[in-house]
Amino acid sequence: MGSHDYDFSVNTQQQVIETAERAREASHALALATRAQKDAALLAMADALLSRSEEILAGNADDVARAEADGTPANIIDRLRLTAERLEAMAQGLRDLAGLPDPVGEVVRGSTLANGLELRQVRVPFGVVGMIYEARPNVTADAAGICLKSGNAVLLRGSSSARSSNAAIVAVLRDAAESAGLDRDVVQLVPGDTHDSVKALMRARGHVDVLIPRGGAGLIRSVVEESTVPVIETGVGNCHVYVDAAADLDQALAIVLNAKTHRTSVCNAAESLLVHADVSDEFVPRVVAALQDAGVTVHGDTVFAGQDGVQPATDDDYSREYLSLDISAAVVPDLDAAITHIRRHSSGHSDAIVTRDQAAARRFVAAVDSAAVLVNASTRFTDGGEFGFGAEIGISTQKLHARGPMGLPEMTSTKYVVTGEGHLR
Amino acid sequence: MGSHDYDFSVNTQQQVIETAERAREASHALALATRAQKDAALLAMADALLSRSEEILAGNADDVARAEADGTPANIIDRLRLTAERLEAMAQGLRDLAGLPDPVGEVVRGSTLANGLELRQVRVPFGVVGMIYEARPNVTADAAGICLKSGNAVLLRGSSSARSSNAAIVAVLRDAAESAGLDRDVVQLVPGDTHDSVKALMRARGHVDVLIPRGGAGLIRSVVEESTVPVIETGVGNCHVYVDAAADLDQALAIVLNAKTHRTSVCNAAESLLVHADVSDEFVPRVVAALQDAGVTVHGDTVFAGQDGVQPATDDDYSREYLSLDISAAVVPDLDAAITHIRRHSSGHSDAIVTRDQAAARRFVAAVDSAAVLVNASTRFTDGGEFGFGAEIGISTQKLHARGPMGLPEMTSTKYVVTGEGHLR
Repeated sequence: MGSHDYDFSVNTQQQVIETAERAREASHALALATRAQKDAALLAMADALLSRSEEILAGNADDVARAEADGTPANIIDRLRLTAERLEAMAQGLRDLAGLPDPVGEVVRGSTLANGLELRQVRVPFGVVGMIYEARPNVTADAAGICLKSGNAVLLRGSSSARSSNAAIVAVLRDAAESAGLDRDVVQLVPGDTHDSVKALMRARGHVDVLIPRGGAGLIRSVVEESTVPVIETGVGNCHVYVDAAADLDQALAIVLNAKTHRTSVCNAAESLLVHADVSDEFVPRVVAALQDAGVTVHGDTVFAGQDGVQPATDDDYSREYLSLDISAAVVPDLDAAITHIRRHSSGHSDAIVTRDQAAARRFVAAVDSAAVLVNASTRFTDGGEFGFGAEIGISTQKLHARGPMGLPEMTSTKYVVTGEGHLR
Repeated sequence: MGSHDYDFSVNTQQQVIETAERAREASHALALATRAQKDAALLAMADALLSRSEEILAGNADDVARAEADGTPANIIDRLRLTAERLEAMAQGLRDLAGLPDPVGEVVRGSTLANGLELRQVRVPFGVVGMIYEARPNVTADAAGICLKSGNAVLLRGSSSARSSNAAIVAVLRDAAESAGLDRDVVQLVPGDTHDSVKALMRARGHVDVLIPRGGAGLIRSVVEESTVPVIETGVGNCHVYVDAAADLDQALAIVLNAKTHRTSVCNAAESLLVHADVSDEFVPRVVAALQDAGVTVHGDTVFAGQDGVQPATDDDYSREYLSLDISAAVVPDLDAAITHIRRHSSGHSDAIVTRDQAAARRFVAAVDSAAVLVNASTRFTDGGEFGFGAEIGISTQKLHARGPMGLPEMTSTKYVVTGEGHLR
């Protein structure tokens, strides 16, 4: 099994469509599977990740060796590397999914119409989901689990640097799904590891219901622009913290530091700081000193650049997602200028205001159109886990279908069920 | 005013983007408008359609004259023609919208997290919506009204055959919106009436938040395939009625006739009939006779083709949306064969089963993955008006965001509002 399930020799487009058609076939039964059946499969998958850890770690060792031979930076290799501990975390993720309610079958709304027809809107799986992702091989198990629990067959296309890890993980998951009575084709790798297979996936409209790219801005942009399959865009975050005239400045300082430095490589980290002019004399020196103490480079406007060590900011800085110990910073004359700045530069992920002024908070919340708008809280809270969703497939920064952290319900569509007794128009 | 608002001479792409940017600017204030302000604008728009009916009818007369000179078929000209009565219906549509609840601001879900953060998911407008539509000029007022009520600025691109009607209607609606205190740019025509302007709209990603094509299958397919702006696909319906072994055959006959003949040009009309083999001896002759009496041509399999006047069906017939007094028909050996046939041929709009058997109904509802699945009711009920939505922008046949009839809530996105008191991770 494993990579032997696939023959990479024939035409990629046709292979991808055949794979998607196997997924479609498997999705029919999976859509009708009970929660008990799906949870049993998730637990079997968790067990198999551990009982067959040797072959997964062997596959991963191949990927790590290849990356080392290619001169890949140490931090990337660290993300690629699997350990017994990381496999246990992957297994625990699958067990956690088994503990979550089944989104499929939930009645979203229902009523009896004037003519006696019974109307119900019910959650159903999408059908076939394609995942295109970079980086860590643990996403392979996470995505497979979330798709299975939400009743979707999944086509996984990880990065080619993790191909042996992913092939081994998927082989294990498929065997476990089958042992639990499901069709093994509910989880499949996309055949081929050149860009052709990504392209084929993006063009498989009608065969694949939804594509979810997870990774850097470049990957997401290319999928969004080239795909004819409907896409859910995830994760680019140029997040702002705006410190209002009426802010508690101690609180503001703590929020800025937390949002910027708690973890820099994530999409909900703050990348830009705006400060109301009324408090800039007091706050700018304090926040610059605190950020610099934490190792952050500040790219500031003329006011900020008056502080030692602050780099002058270009317009580009204000639109950048640094994902590093850097932050852009500017002083704004008032709340509306902060809103205008955010409208211009924000990626629509998470933007925060720090203020004790109820009217300012209300205006900021209403006028800033982002997936999450936070009042007196760190941008780091925009997260499926923090929101209590139990599982997260990504954070949507688009407005269609799902916006913000996506849990299990966001991995479903709905259908209307209309029941009558011979009703005619 | 009217078409004079636009200068068609410069580069189309740039013009469309400039128009979208005016819409974006107008959308900021519209998103914050109260229901009272929006309802006042809708009522002013309704009044203006009637008080300025002369200029609208004059514009329409130009379109009708041009269509007649081009030799356009009479039924198309009838759809293009506006009358005092049709203007009154358009005005009433806007008044009805004023009576509906405002979707914006609705709290979809909310909770207090373990750490005391307050989480609310709130409906917000998309921002800028693009409508591409064919046919009747009344869609211009309907779409403008639905977008306004849901807080969205709209860019309207009707068919060029209705350009003078649409320009006159939009000029009237813009004046009325302004008179009610809104920015007139909440409603705009897309400049240009060549295909270039449609193309420019489809490529205006980042400037336009959602595109909704309404019209024939060809229009919708081209928008879905070419657009980089997210699209909500509407309206192609190859709808089935399956008559089960356990059907009440009188009821089945009435449902087939209603679904096929009540109105043939609509997406929720039945296009295909499946009959369980156990009742085919009795039902096939009855249904063929009744359909033929109603003027319907039956395109049937070998069993149906045994009846006088039935045309032999090709595989293509089973996938066709006739939109006419034609129906494809086949006998199936059992319920699962009906489900398999529907999976293969249905457009995923509306499919119905007629049966007294609870288990058969349950299995059909679970296994048929269409926007609406009906039990013992005509497919004609899949409709925003019938479902009690009060307004409908179209019927989505895609699985992302909205599926089935789309009312006002489906014209919104959501955002998360997170409120704390200095919360850090």
